[in-house]
Amino acid sequence: MRISALIIDYLLRMYFTLKIFNQQPKKFSKRLAKQITNYTLGAKMAKKQIDIPSSETLIDRLKLEDLLKRRFFYDQSFAIYGGVGGLYDYGPMGCALKQNMIQLWRTHFILEESMLEVECSSLTPEGVLKTSGHVDRFVDWMVKDKITGACFRADHLIKNNAEAILKVNFYSDKKAPVNIKKELEEVLIRLDGMSCDELGETIRKYKFKSPLNGNDLTDPVSFNLMFPTQIGPTGDFSAYLRPETAQGIFINFKRLLEFNQGKLPFAAAQIGTGFRNEISPRQGLVRVREFTMCEIEHFVDPADKSHPKFDRVADIELNLFSACNQLNGKGTEKVKICDAVANGIVDNETLGYYMARTHLFLCNVGISPDKLRFRQHLSNEMAHYAKDCWDAECLTTHGWIESVGIADRSCFDLHQHSKATGVKLVAEKKLSESKQVDIVEAVPNKAVIGKLFKNESRKIMDILKNLSDSEIDELEISLKNNGEYSIKISDDKSIILDSSHVEVRKYLKTVHVEDVTPSVIEPSFGIGRVMYAVLEHSFRQREGDEKRSYLELPPNIAPIKCSILPISANKRLDPIIQAVREELTRHEISSKIDDSVGGSIGRRYARTDEIGIPFGVTVDFDSEKEPWTVTLRYAPTMQQIRLKVAEVGDLVSQLIKGKMTWEAACQKFPIFNASQDNE
Amino acid sequence: MRISALIIDYLLRMYFTLKIFNQQPKKFSKRLAKQITNYTLGAKMAKKQIDIPSSETLIDRLKLEDLLKRRFFYDQSFAIYGGVGGLYDYGPMGCALKQNMIQLWRTHFILEESMLEVECSSLTPEGVLKTSGHVDRFVDWMVKDKITGACFRADHLIKNNAEAILKVNFYSDKKAPVNIKKELEEVLIRLDGMSCDELGETIRKYKFKSPLNGNDLTDPVSFNLMFPTQIGPTGDFSAYLRPETAQGIFINFKRLLEFNQGKLPFAAAQIGTGFRNEISPRQGLVRVREFTMCEIEHFVDPADKSHPKFDRVADIELNLFSACNQLNGKGTEKVKICDAVANGIVDNETLGYYMARTHLFLCNVGISPDKLRFRQHLSNEMAHYAKDCWDAECLTTHGWIESVGIADRSCFDLHQHSKATGVKLVAEKKLSESKQVDIVEAVPNKAVIGKLFKNESRKIMDILKNLSDSEIDELEISLKNNGEYSIKISDDKSIILDSSHVEVRKYLKTVHVEDVTPSVIEPSFGIGRVMYAVLEHSFRQREGDEKRSYLELPPNIAPIKCSILPISANKRLDPIIQAVREELTRHEISSKIDDSVGGSIGRRYARTDEIGIPFGVTVDFDSEKEPWTVTLRYAPTMQQIRLKVAEVGDLVSQLIKGKMTWEAACQKFPIFNASQDNE
Repeated sequence: MRISALIIDYLLRMYFTLKIFNQQPKKFSKRLAKQITNYTLGAKMAKKQIDIPSSETLIDRLKLEDLLKRRFFYDQSFAIYGGVGGLYDYGPMGCALKQNMIQLWRTHFILEESMLEVECSSLTPEGVLKTSGHVDRFVDWMVKDKITGACFRADHLIKNNAEAILKVNFYSDKKAPVNIKKELEEVLIRLDGMSCDELGETIRKYKFKSPLNGNDLTDPVSFNLMFPTQIGPTGDFSAYLRPETAQGIFINFKRLLEFNQGKLPFAAAQIGTGFRNEISPRQGLVRVREFTMCEIEHFVDPADKSHPKFDRVADIELNLFSACNQLNGKGTEKVKICDAVANGIVDNETLGYYMARTHLFLCNVGISPDKLRFRQHLSNEMAHYAKDCWDAECLTTHGWIESVGIADRSCFDLHQHSKATGVKLVAEKKLSESKQVDIVEAVPNKAVIGKLFKNESRKIMDILKNLSDSEIDELEISLKNNGEYSIKISDDKSIILDSSHVEVRKYLKTVHVEDVTPSVIEPSFGIGRVMYAVLEHSFRQREGDEKRSYLELPPNIAPIKCSILPISANKRLDPIIQAVREELTRHEISSKIDDSVGGSIGRRYARTDEIGIPFGVTVDFDSEKEPWTVTLRYAPTMQQIRLKVAEVGDLVSQLIKGKMTWEAACQKFPIFNASQDNE
Repeated sequence: MRISALIIDYLLRMYFTLKIFNQQPKKFSKRLAKQITNYTLGAKMAKKQIDIPSSETLIDRLKLEDLLKRRFFYDQSFAIYGGVGGLYDYGPMGCALKQNMIQLWRTHFILEESMLEVECSSLTPEGVLKTSGHVDRFVDWMVKDKITGACFRADHLIKNNAEAILKVNFYSDKKAPVNIKKELEEVLIRLDGMSCDELGETIRKYKFKSPLNGNDLTDPVSFNLMFPTQIGPTGDFSAYLRPETAQGIFINFKRLLEFNQGKLPFAAAQIGTGFRNEISPRQGLVRVREFTMCEIEHFVDPADKSHPKFDRVADIELNLFSACNQLNGKGTEKVKICDAVANGIVDNETLGYYMARTHLFLCNVGISPDKLRFRQHLSNEMAHYAKDCWDAECLTTHGWIESVGIADRSCFDLHQHSKATGVKLVAEKKLSESKQVDIVEAVPNKAVIGKLFKNESRKIMDILKNLSDSEIDELEISLKNNGEYSIKISDDKSIILDSSHVEVRKYLKTVHVEDVTPSVIEPSFGIGRVMYAVLEHSFRQREGDEKRSYLELPPNIAPIKCSILPISANKRLDPIIQAVREELTRHEISSKIDDSVGGSIGRRYARTDEIGIPFGVTVDFDSEKEPWTVTLRYAPTMQQIRLKVAEVGDLVSQLIKGKMTWEAACQKFPIFNASQDNE
């Protein structure tokens, strides 16, 4: 590791020394270029701004990737057809791991908070996504190689280039001009909020070229990240695959509110697939085109964003990287969530509650707390309607990756959909005391309208009912001055009304409730990214035997909980193996028998360690003595204890559920000293 | 019901009397037309051919649909935008019901048989679906209204028209010519296998018109049912949304076989979304454009399709509707699956095993056995490569709907993908005795080729390795006669080899294994359809109070297992309510407290019955006596028993798991006589 780092470092210097003075760089092999990129992204440069822990905490990614592929956790989709970038298939181990994580998410959030779970369509009509802003604004800026036409994401290209240049300076004595360094640091900080023009200007200014061959690049053009399709046979019904599951919840708001008997606050949740047509996905599971999201939309009175259960999480300390600290070049700070809310760093209790709950969930599934931070969005990267937004980021060899976004979206989405459809998306709020309000109404003469306009009368009535106060004023003035008022009932038809059809009434009314458009707090999880970070954080190599790598997955999410390994293929052991299997099944513990006679017990342990099976039962010839006993091995420590077969299920069950620690089990049962692990 | 049936019957007669003599029918309102179609589809006509039980078993669909919409089991997606045909959103109740069914499916199939679960991409490159045959053959035939352009599925249009005409005759004395009736019956039987020409001919012959307005229709044209899209920014990478999850498994066959240590048989399974761009979806959840599939691909030696666990299901009786019986106009027959396999009605044990297991699953989730049949595909509706195929069909008001397909797909898919990619998709089979085989090899001279062709040498070696026997013969002849042999290493480059580069070797080899391409048995579940059928089969109306409808869902799939209803809003009952809640949570039983003071206890019972909550705890003022007691009510019978709070969790848990019947519980605990149910 140390040596390869030095070599790569040297190559990087050479490459960028040439590059920064705008000479054509030597032709690098693609593989080397990739290695450099990988290394750069995961490295510890720019320590000051982005607060990366030292490189000791980073793992050997190639080894991990080899393990995950070989044991089929996941791999590129359609591999036998050459594969497709950004698409991955989960094999039996990855599928079980992901399912376990989702099940835990469901328990931790949906059950715990009695959320309303829904499942909505992926296919989404264009009109809906026009309203939500995705058709116009869900774009990335892309530059093209002027010669080959290869496409790159403009911001990624700038980031990789700038980081690489800074990195060379970080190690090198021969520093590039200090002003360039300063500028590029500034560029990195502002990057997420840059406009098309700024991106283009940056690329031109620093003469960034195609990373593949040094060719010139075009100016950035926008590229919409949604996958387009058509619904039905006529070809004129445009639709997209949803880029997020959230819109399905907003669209069903009215029904969900009814389901909740009209009461605020409440939360709805959805677990489902999102699709984003990434320009040139790299980085494995981190940047993919199809992914599972777990999203919560918590609807709350905008005037009261307190949370009834906030007290339960108030003292939890989070690693906060506030906007302020990012701009001042400071690092993260450990802050109790109650203090962060009290000081106004985090906007409100509900947002803070979900941040703390997210922290608990992530640690629970195996994210290292020291590789987890909550980064606040800068005002220029936040949507204009958002009040506050924090990303839970996990440190991996790809750098800090955004795994969860927790945003206060205010009432933007409900408001937009309401405006587009004419359907009121509001909740009734009881007033603390009743009040008098001025009512202005356009009252139709139903009998006359019905008789005169027949089929169209319903439409006319609807339009009159939904007029805004200012429109009613207009109507009143028009009736008075012109004796008529025109309303548009379709794109190509207007109807003239006079005072025999409609009159304006004004009066005072006592009201006890008022309509409010709820604010929405949205925690949004990218399960694939969380899973990838968990895999990196749980990857270990045995000290003194680094080839022997394994996954120290938390038992609650491990794909298989317990292995059963007979020490010999002798048939005499079969009844004991069967008894262990039944004992585990009775306790609903998934198990895997590895009775391959080819491998020594040590090699078989290694094989089960590799896929993160935390516990292993070994059946040996001492097992035959009545009452039957076996050894139970804990993979991370390789320690073994000896216990009765009849005790195995209960103990493993308690260990998985976290009701007992391994240390306590070692106190309770005799330690078994085995030498087989090194065989 | 009886009266509305008579009215519809009368209208139908009127409509088709006009129609059959080719007069322009009167203008029917769309709503009436729909009612007629619904009625026709679900009715008991054509009793002889398609074996529909009498109409008493059919439910009031409008009432059920009202319930499902009102309590948000599911509803049309994007309803506030006007809705999209064939897309549905599941609300909290539907979502929980579906999740429970899927979880049960996972236990019943994946865990029970130790299947390898995978999760593959929905986005699928065109090339893959070209190989599988979907690009060319996954089409429906569509006719268009010549004037409005409205599209209809040709076969559905014929079916609806033919059934309607037959139905008129069924009720009417004024029979249409017997020969037309006979012909149309014949048409219905042959419909699924009809070619484009036959469909067009049928429509012309019987002068079928647009069902909406009687307009003339075009000849059928093909319409591909896959949703097209593009991957990546360049616009030249065509892809589709997968129409089935199966292909993802075939593509990963090699890895899955490795994961299974090279051994056959094994099964892989996938639970995921499939997409089909239906031409004009109707019939609610029965025909949708986006749906959850649960698919199994069981890979087995084609020479031995026995199943090790067949004995366990051998005596299960299935309702079989064989191809033979369909053609002979006979009905279904109850047959033990062992007899069906022995007699050759069902092709093999593995297929029969999955049919029986499917039967058990469906009955377990609430399908009525008397509304379930297995219909064999006729040879003209089966894919040319399929060996045998049976659909599990459930009787609903939409007629018999195909809910599960169980097919022996032979080795077609693996063979196709192997041919397209050049990747061997085979398993090694141990020979009972070793044999001698002729080996013909093109042996490259690696050193010479490597030196001469450098980067291309690897490619050349690969091509030589993969030459077929006949190609090697060609090579040998060419080298002998011409002194050279040309191989194509890319679309626009060939390379000339001579005898210094390659030689042909022939020899005898003793082999102990042979390669086999496994056959695939595929059970494929449409979970939405099964769920819809379950909802129809569990829909009940209280005798004497038909307005009060409810769902008698099996407790294992009910969205919520137990309600908690305090008889009064008096705060004194709160600690008892809380104790019950905790008692249930301790036993992992989902519960719902309904303490709305507005409703009488009877109305609240009705509300929980409606959403299929099987058990209800009532807390009353007798509950306060120590030790606290409550009543437990079983929704289908409305009976109540009285027991201690501390006994509730264990009892309900046993009732849900089917370890105790309600009758047995009534024996064990005192019956509580309440009059509240009728309040």
